Amino acid sequence: MSELRWDPIKQQWVIIATDRGRRPRDFTVETEDGDMTCCPFCYGNEDKTAHELYAIRPSGAPNTPNWQLRVVPNKFPVLRVEGDLNNRAYGMYDVMNGIGAHEVIIETPDHKRGMADLTVKEIAGVLTAYRVRLLDLRKDIRFRYMVLFKNHGVMAGATLSHSHSQLIAVPLIPPLAAQELKVCREYFEAKERCIYCDMIDFELREGARVVQEFSDYVVITPYASTFPFELRLYPKRHGHDFALLNEAELSGLAVAMKDMLSRLKAILRDPPYNFILHSAPPLQPRPGKPEFWSSIEYDFHWHIELVPRLTQIAGFEWGTGFHINPTAPEDAAAFLKEAAI
Amino acid sequence: MSELRWDPIKQQWVIIATDRGRRPRDFTVETEDGDMTCCPFCYGNEDKTAHELYAIRPSGAPNTPNWQLRVVPNKFPVLRVEGDLNNRAYGMYDVMNGIGAHEVIIETPDHKRGMADLTVKEIAGVLTAYRVRLLDLRKDIRFRYMVLFKNHGVMAGATLSHSHSQLIAVPLIPPLAAQELKVCREYFEAKERCIYCDMIDFELREGARVVQEFSDYVVITPYASTFPFELRLYPKRHGHDFALLNEAELSGLAVAMKDMLSRLKAILRDPPYNFILHSAPPLQPRPGKPEFWSSIEYDFHWHIELVPRLTQIAGFEWGTGFHINPTAPEDAAAFLKEAAI
Repeated sequence: MSELRWDPIKQQWVIIATDRGRRPRDFTVETEDGDMTCCPFCYGNEDKTAHELYAIRPSGAPNTPNWQLRVVPNKFPVLRVEGDLNNRAYGMYDVMNGIGAHEVIIETPDHKRGMADLTVKEIAGVLTAYRVRLLDLRKDIRFRYMVLFKNHGVMAGATLSHSHSQLIAVPLIPPLAAQELKVCREYFEAKERCIYCDMIDFELREGARVVQEFSDYVVITPYASTFPFELRLYPKRHGHDFALLNEAELSGLAVAMKDMLSRLKAILRDPPYNFILHSAPPLQPRPGKPEFWSSIEYDFHWHIELVPRLTQIAGFEWGTGFHINPTAPEDAAAFLKEAAI
Repeated sequence: MSELRWDPIKQQWVIIATDRGRRPRDFTVETEDGDMTCCPFCYGNEDKTAHELYAIRPSGAPNTPNWQLRVVPNKFPVLRVEGDLNNRAYGMYDVMNGIGAHEVIIETPDHKRGMADLTVKEIAGVLTAYRVRLLDLRKDIRFRYMVLFKNHGVMAGATLSHSHSQLIAVPLIPPLAAQELKVCREYFEAKERCIYCDMIDFELREGARVVQEFSDYVVITPYASTFPFELRLYPKRHGHDFALLNEAELSGLAVAMKDMLSRLKAILRDPPYNFILHSAPPLQPRPGKPEFWSSIEYDFHWHIELVPRLTQIAGFEWGTGFHINPTAPEDAAAFLKEAAI
């Protein structure tokens, strides 16, 4: 069981492995798994993962080969489904049990293809898997937020090179999500408009940071990008919840995703990156606590944030929360626009 | 000139290089400078740095060899001293010029010695240089905060391996510092006690996270450590401002620093790390704006925060602000206590 511990000064929760965690000698440089025979995400190694929660397969039984996509519980989950929260005090600190869920979306059986190499139809399958699993996890009212993200490359924190995304359900709203929801709430309160709709409108008129526009989506480099070549993918029409998209909307999103990932791969030679879905959290009932975000369908605008991992986060950034970006987003957009894809 | 740009949703400032910044082809893996003949921080290469701002040298003229320590302006500053802030609006965003100062403290002429290898007396010299430069930069009332930090190792963001620290003066209070000062302020307001004094008292009584105690200082692993083997060095007596330490206090601190860095080096085989000084900002006069932190000498407790860089920050941490730490701080403290130094 891990613990969630609260730091009263930094005002943040940390997930701490309190069982036998990593020892000093365990922090050696991790190497890539070039060998497909032992990759747990390849065909024929289905017994090396836990039983699948969802799959796309033309035919055949669960947990056998011939699938296009599989979702399985993570073998080394950071949070576990069993138990209760047991929210308690310890001296001046707070602590609760590490309850949650941790799933892996194996995006393709092919060890060598990254997400940018998948077809639009295959990417649409990945997005469908995201939607299915998000909707399923919402049924557990202990989970207040679902973090859906992808680590691509060792430098971005991926421990297996076979293309996959992860979904972690957590028992509280993470600090950056809480802050974003609060800002959106206050903006709507003041103006009766969505802050993201206003921003997208401004960016489309300015143009200098637009990488590519589609009928329903747009990819931009944010004005105050914290990292070089940082990207945001927004739906142009207001919508708070990714999980409410229909088939046609998911197909349109797959086109935009394929385009965005291909440009990045072409210009930066397959860089390591992280992306994360920002979508409205489920509004779970809490004793005596009406949700601050009850108007969330007006306030919030779902989107995808992507950061290539080209620079190290150094002492200045880590200690101040203030980033230094050596590439202006206007320059990054110009390079990405010209990508030969 | 760089720009400081404000993100109205993430509520953060970013320093962006708007001159010719880094192009896609510039993001290649940086290599270590093993060759001492071209290291700008070695003896005989004093002409490869800008003129020194401060030095410790037994004899000889400025900018010649035979020094023990030098402080020079950074050759590639992220912020520049010249110009004015020109705080303005751009659409729904805010922007100001990148005014500041960026200095490098070259801690030793010896290319091969890290800070842990310096003598206590040499470390006291480094701490003296920190104090001298902090006091000098405070005279410029455009600077509202000084970030004093060290990147050790490529993985921690160091671009030169020769041991050095950096000092960046910024025209605003960075977000993490502002949050910390606010929490300290509110705690003092409520209890008339310093939150750090209470925490140090609790940790000394508990003991499980104390790495080493000295007469005036203590090194602990924080209860909600965000990274494995994270460390804090606190003065046991309340004090808000590092720059007010006298010679004897700096000598005591040098002993504690040497001990902390040596334990880390022994247990984790010279890991990459960052440390940062948290000290009270100078209270600069602002038109029409009384300082919120005017009681800072009671509220705040200076200290040093250190994080070894053993794990990559991945999508989950970056996107949620919520960290996963695979080593409990109690285990980390136990290993560090036993270090053979």
